[in-house]
Amino acid sequence: MKTYNNPQRKEWTNLVQRVSIKSEELTKVVQSIIQNVKANGDKALTEYANQFDNVGISDFLVTRIEIEEANKSISQELKEAIDIAYKNIYTFHKAQKEEENKIETSEGITCWRKSSPIEKVGLYIPGGSAPLFSTILMLGIPSKIAGCEEISMCTPSDKNKEVHPAILYTADLVGITKIYKVGGAQAIAAMAYGTESVNRVYKIFGPGNQYVTKAKELIQQDGIAIDMPAGPSELLIIADESSKPSFVAADLLSQAEHGTDSQVILLSDNSEVIDQVLVEIEIQIESLPRKEIALKALQNSKSILLNTIDECFEFSNEYAPEHLIIASENANNYLNKIKNAGSVFIGNYSCEAAGDYASGTNHTLPTNGFAKNYSGVSLDSFVKKITFQEVTKKGIQNIGKAIEIMAETEGLIAHKNAVSIRLKDINND
Amino acid sequence: MKTYNNPQRKEWTNLVQRVSIKSEELTKVVQSIIQNVKANGDKALTEYANQFDNVGISDFLVTRIEIEEANKSISQELKEAIDIAYKNIYTFHKAQKEEENKIETSEGITCWRKSSPIEKVGLYIPGGSAPLFSTILMLGIPSKIAGCEEISMCTPSDKNKEVHPAILYTADLVGITKIYKVGGAQAIAAMAYGTESVNRVYKIFGPGNQYVTKAKELIQQDGIAIDMPAGPSELLIIADESSKPSFVAADLLSQAEHGTDSQVILLSDNSEVIDQVLVEIEIQIESLPRKEIALKALQNSKSILLNTIDECFEFSNEYAPEHLIIASENANNYLNKIKNAGSVFIGNYSCEAAGDYASGTNHTLPTNGFAKNYSGVSLDSFVKKITFQEVTKKGIQNIGKAIEIMAETEGLIAHKNAVSIRLKDINND
Repeated sequence: MKTYNNPQRKEWTNLVQRVSIKSEELTKVVQSIIQNVKANGDKALTEYANQFDNVGISDFLVTRIEIEEANKSISQELKEAIDIAYKNIYTFHKAQKEEENKIETSEGITCWRKSSPIEKVGLYIPGGSAPLFSTILMLGIPSKIAGCEEISMCTPSDKNKEVHPAILYTADLVGITKIYKVGGAQAIAAMAYGTESVNRVYKIFGPGNQYVTKAKELIQQDGIAIDMPAGPSELLIIADESSKPSFVAADLLSQAEHGTDSQVILLSDNSEVIDQVLVEIEIQIESLPRKEIALKALQNSKSILLNTIDECFEFSNEYAPEHLIIASENANNYLNKIKNAGSVFIGNYSCEAAGDYASGTNHTLPTNGFAKNYSGVSLDSFVKKITFQEVTKKGIQNIGKAIEIMAETEGLIAHKNAVSIRLKDINND
Repeated sequence: MKTYNNPQRKEWTNLVQRVSIKSEELTKVVQSIIQNVKANGDKALTEYANQFDNVGISDFLVTRIEIEEANKSISQELKEAIDIAYKNIYTFHKAQKEEENKIETSEGITCWRKSSPIEKVGLYIPGGSAPLFSTILMLGIPSKIAGCEEISMCTPSDKNKEVHPAILYTADLVGITKIYKVGGAQAIAAMAYGTESVNRVYKIFGPGNQYVTKAKELIQQDGIAIDMPAGPSELLIIADESSKPSFVAADLLSQAEHGTDSQVILLSDNSEVIDQVLVEIEIQIESLPRKEIALKALQNSKSILLNTIDECFEFSNEYAPEHLIIASENANNYLNKIKNAGSVFIGNYSCEAAGDYASGTNHTLPTNGFAKNYSGVSLDSFVKKITFQEVTKKGIQNIGKAIEIMAETEGLIAHKNAVSIRLKDINND
């Protein structure tokens, strides 16, 4: 980790920068994948499975038999763990359901919003070394609570045309019936435009590599919504003298192991805390299977000593971290200082891993500074809110004149007429 | 209007299509404007004001004196009308404020969401023939309720370097302090990247022509959020035999006068209703100042006779209209049939113009079929929701084992360690 001691304010702008990866080459490659899937459907998917994943696959839909085999191969211990996570995630997201709150804005005018599920949603779950079945819980549970009618999921298979059993088990548990063995940018294109096998959806969720991310960015131009723009995962920890340096180190490493591009930042008003954390990192990193990844991630990471805890929060708000841990016994006293963050972990026992898996909050969160203007995934992400208004005769009598004047000032006489014709009709009654 | 009698289901796919305008030329022009503003700031803005608006302007910020002059020139009648609209819009959006709802997902684990204002937002208000001061209410009021710290507004000035007084009056009433006389794609670029005069914002709202719309689409790639993707305004009316054809005609015309690209659709299960509405349109259109615009819009518009009211709602859900009027005395019985719509107007006295100006609902709504996957603007649009979790010793003891097992299955041992080190510490206490 690079360490900084009381950097000047003007240096902050650089310190909060993320590594920017912009590649025209990447855009071109992904554009051509999207075009091919649009034009050739399943045929293109088969080509890419051969080309990228070395899998000769043409039947993409996971069968009931495969799911039942996966269910058998999962340990009871893992099933119980998933159950605990499921229950907490369900409880938290269920509580986000909103009542229709009818508001009489003026006499005779009632307005309200109703959450209506997005009918068709698609979830992308990456394959590779880590089978991210936890993400299926995070996306599948709220989509079910929302009432989405059609929930599709794409995930790549391995060279034996198999998907990790934990992924199949979890998808089935959540109630996802359409699981397709398709990965990469081509999976995003398939869900965005539909193929013979894969149904078209209206919104696509889920993490992925740079190809997947770019594909999600591009398909938006055709009106398909996405959960949020994405970047590498991040953790910022603010630790004061009441923090536990060994916990802080463990949390920083848990972020660093995600990928070589992970971002880790430690802020403190106490130089001893920083020193102790750095020593702890050296010790703990040795036993990690993903040590090499973590080491590379730490090269881009920063520990910064600032004058006060207030300054730490000001810096954090500028950075707008995806995950923010307040490693302090007094963490609750600081909450009002937070302006920009994806998810906040309060106190020494709230590790990021808790939120990643099982506390109940969603782990699909804004990275790359997007916490300044985007929320993480929640039940809201799976619905749109339709507004309703009922204007009675009394209601249009109350506000009709105002509408007429405003419409006339805006030069929209047909708007005015739509009111006038009603007022006249009421007066003639 | 083109009329269709009981078209077959397979024809619906074509009937719900919007006119698609894709222009590579447009993208290039707007990209170059954005690049120029990024590189040259105010200098570029001055150039474009000269080039596009024929205004020799270099001082973009509206002064207090200009605002006071505007305030004087507005009629008392208009001020009162705006006050009524303000009150209703404020009431409806204020009611959208959410309490923090703390949920104990498991013993010792408390999770909640907190709405935090997006610190810097930018509003775009088009100039031209219609001074859309109503849009300032729709965007400014919720931004104030949300608590956004910095609210900027861009709007083009006329050839005398003046902005319509109703725009300045309304912006001031709402409490917008930074009003810039900048229009077009260059205004969007200025708010996205900042110039010497115009402050950079995190999210941009508001309608505009195709240049503005394209600019909003493009700046998203740099992480600036926008309210929603945009297309021409639309109205779909479902009218049954209890509708009032003259009202229906007036409403269709109020939509048609917006622009030649406006979309208007009438559905009914009753051919007489359709016939009567068409006759009424012929009569009412004659007296409209914007008759030519409305006539052109009607050329692209459709009246469709379907077998049943249920079918009308099925068609409407496929189309996903921005505005949906249910022109029926029994409108309330039909509400549960609605799956996709931006804003719904219930019954014969709920004209779209009411929602455009003063019922209290927001008039910034998803067009172009985006009502399938996007909500209209609401208080939510001006905040992001930060999740919090507090895990106590008891809490991590409750779910720690589950996290360890899940993390291990995902191959993320540092995640597991972050829990293990805490459990060990608690056991050693």
